[in-house]
Amino acid sequence: MTEPTDVDSDGAVASRRRFLREGGALVGGIALAGGVAGGEVVAATNAVAADNVPPNVPEWMKTPGDPVGSQLYGTPSSFEKGIVRNVPKNAAQYLSAASRTPLQDLDGIITPNGLFYERHHGGIPAIDPAQHRLMLHGLVDRPLIFTMDDIRRFPSESRIHFLECSGNPGYKKPYGKTASDLVGLLSCAEWTGVSLKLVLQEAGLQQAAKWVIAEGADAAALTRSIPIEKCLEDAMLVYSQNGERLRPQQGYPLRLLLPGFEGNMSVKWLRRLRVAAEPAYSREETSKYTDLLPDGSAREFTFYMEAKSIITRPSGGQRLSAPGYHEISGIAWSGHGKINRVDVSVDEGKSWQQAQLQEPVLTRALTRFRLPWHWNGQAAMIQSRATDETGYVQPALSELLAVRGENYFYHNNAIWPWRIDAEGEVTNANA
Amino acid sequence: MTEPTDVDSDGAVASRRRFLREGGALVGGIALAGGVAGGEVVAATNAVAADNVPPNVPEWMKTPGDPVGSQLYGTPSSFEKGIVRNVPKNAAQYLSAASRTPLQDLDGIITPNGLFYERHHGGIPAIDPAQHRLMLHGLVDRPLIFTMDDIRRFPSESRIHFLECSGNPGYKKPYGKTASDLVGLLSCAEWTGVSLKLVLQEAGLQQAAKWVIAEGADAAALTRSIPIEKCLEDAMLVYSQNGERLRPQQGYPLRLLLPGFEGNMSVKWLRRLRVAAEPAYSREETSKYTDLLPDGSAREFTFYMEAKSIITRPSGGQRLSAPGYHEISGIAWSGHGKINRVDVSVDEGKSWQQAQLQEPVLTRALTRFRLPWHWNGQAAMIQSRATDETGYVQPALSELLAVRGENYFYHNNAIWPWRIDAEGEVTNANA
Repeated sequence: MTEPTDVDSDGAVASRRRFLREGGALVGGIALAGGVAGGEVVAATNAVAADNVPPNVPEWMKTPGDPVGSQLYGTPSSFEKGIVRNVPKNAAQYLSAASRTPLQDLDGIITPNGLFYERHHGGIPAIDPAQHRLMLHGLVDRPLIFTMDDIRRFPSESRIHFLECSGNPGYKKPYGKTASDLVGLLSCAEWTGVSLKLVLQEAGLQQAAKWVIAEGADAAALTRSIPIEKCLEDAMLVYSQNGERLRPQQGYPLRLLLPGFEGNMSVKWLRRLRVAAEPAYSREETSKYTDLLPDGSAREFTFYMEAKSIITRPSGGQRLSAPGYHEISGIAWSGHGKINRVDVSVDEGKSWQQAQLQEPVLTRALTRFRLPWHWNGQAAMIQSRATDETGYVQPALSELLAVRGENYFYHNNAIWPWRIDAEGEVTNANA
Repeated sequence: MTEPTDVDSDGAVASRRRFLREGGALVGGIALAGGVAGGEVVAATNAVAADNVPPNVPEWMKTPGDPVGSQLYGTPSSFEKGIVRNVPKNAAQYLSAASRTPLQDLDGIITPNGLFYERHHGGIPAIDPAQHRLMLHGLVDRPLIFTMDDIRRFPSESRIHFLECSGNPGYKKPYGKTASDLVGLLSCAEWTGVSLKLVLQEAGLQQAAKWVIAEGADAAALTRSIPIEKCLEDAMLVYSQNGERLRPQQGYPLRLLLPGFEGNMSVKWLRRLRVAAEPAYSREETSKYTDLLPDGSAREFTFYMEAKSIITRPSGGQRLSAPGYHEISGIAWSGHGKINRVDVSVDEGKSWQQAQLQEPVLTRALTRFRLPWHWNGQAAMIQSRATDETGYVQPALSELLAVRGENYFYHNNAIWPWRIDAEGEVTNANA
């Protein structure tokens, strides 16, 4: 048995305890001896005195609950009905539009499938998997057509990766109020599927093969050109997400997944891969998903999502209930690999402290970071800055604007500071 | 650019390609030059001939799909409506009962929240989180009562762990037909919450503290005694699962999580922790969740879920469509730590091959294993055997029965062989 006296010899915990007790008050609990004495707490106090008597027995213990299997496929508690995807209000149409993940209400790194962000260019097709086909042709020795059963017979692999839209959040003000408004075109899941490299090799790549043109089976026939290097690195044909089959919004029954690349290239409802010597120069890589630079040239084929981070708690729309201990928590990610470190500033950027990263840190996946913080009750500005394993450091918005100019829209990976006022209200410091 | 000629220099992939081509036939695709010529394939073949013309355009590309945000909280495709929790039919009542995860239909290691297994002893209470309280008392210096806001102010952590019922599957025949029937009281998720050690230290453990008695706020007031060592090791107070708040079936708004221990000890709807010198000897650790041994003594406080594995694909109820390449895939787990290796036999246990483990292998989490297999079209028996990092090897059912006798029910971690007949039908070899 570990003797209770051993407990205080744990230095890390002792340090955390100091945080909890800063300001002379216990945080995280009400000391029964002298705390706030609402009716419920008093009742509980009496119960504690007797020691074997439970605290006030709530109504839901006095009657049987819902039976097992009352939800064959479960849904969240009705008390969480406000935690839903963030859909823009009063858009001109919703066929080419996006909904955002409520990042400020989530913990950890996995996004539940029901809250995974959406970006569709022609609405969400309802595809019968028995009728779906993937065609692989072009500069290959053996053009192939696959059924879903064919795809599922290939060797499989499972990996946790983030997916992010390159227009997350875009440079145009206003940026919005919440973490979801700002960077909610971002989610993370465990994906299962087949190595694209393996499928391409089965068809036999020809010498001239430099690009793979991917086409979706939606009404937009969304088309993107993928460099062959990525196809032979870590690209996947994905059929499952967080254990179960893809949701329709995520490309059911089959999607491409290009870890770390801008989200629209991970073509959903994937029906065709054409191997080619040149890119297709499709609408979504010429008119869209490119950016005009100050010198008049266009930046195109901007594949990689650069290192980025955001504090999700506390974040815009939330409120610190009282001065004292608070945990600052957020997420960081990089299309180039693993997050190496995250620094957090609580003093308008004057100084930075290294946050703790939740293990395991995975490549091209969200990484949860945390920093204990004692809020003194005065106005403050908090922000996070990610560094990835290549050494790349997340820039300030002003640095990005100086280089990319005012016409820029995509690939805004700036630091996002939150302002906290003396009442504890948290707002977007860039808005 | 990686030259396509580099592709075949990849030894591992070349080895996999040999698998795909064994039996003289391409697997995973229909060679357009000479394959099965159904109408759809012919149409696609013509399209390939022109090379820039898409294959047969399905109906769902000819009209816009559902708009963005048509599901604020998403649900699976209607084509997957059969993938639900496995609920026993015609049970006497469903207040103390279980539903099982459809393991044979899932990939990877994460169980989506909608399909997480259930085990309730008094139904599912509907708890208002604003009214919920956790009381911590007994052998502590400062008895405490926590609101959910209090709990959420503590430092948090996120970890991926499995949860399994100790009656999974139980020793009583028949064991059922599918992987879900056998071991579907098993799921895995990313949990976020607070270290129980930290909360106990905040209250101040007294010298005599050896057990923590946990009580749920359900109609059963389910009560279990937890040894203090576990409470100070890796126990958590959990409020989120796979990113979002716990589902009601999983203990909303707060549950205990004891990684690697039998599931019922991870008390749901947690409302009370009483620190004590002795266990409570509650109903669920005396009358239930104990086992009578052949010598008449009872085996009690059987906390740890021992190393275990099962092949989920192919598994009972599935059918191999044709001889040739198939991937054998399954899951392994151990309450004692990480899975060290999984061996698979395809010849009635005469020989065993080491399966590949999907990285990262996490402690007390499901681990996905895979082995390529060429099925020759004849009757076969396949099975998997897990070894964990302590060196413990999953036993055969006959070995367990020899030691534990016929009265045993809980903690059946036997090897589960599947029989495959010449038509490819997969059935439970122990049934």
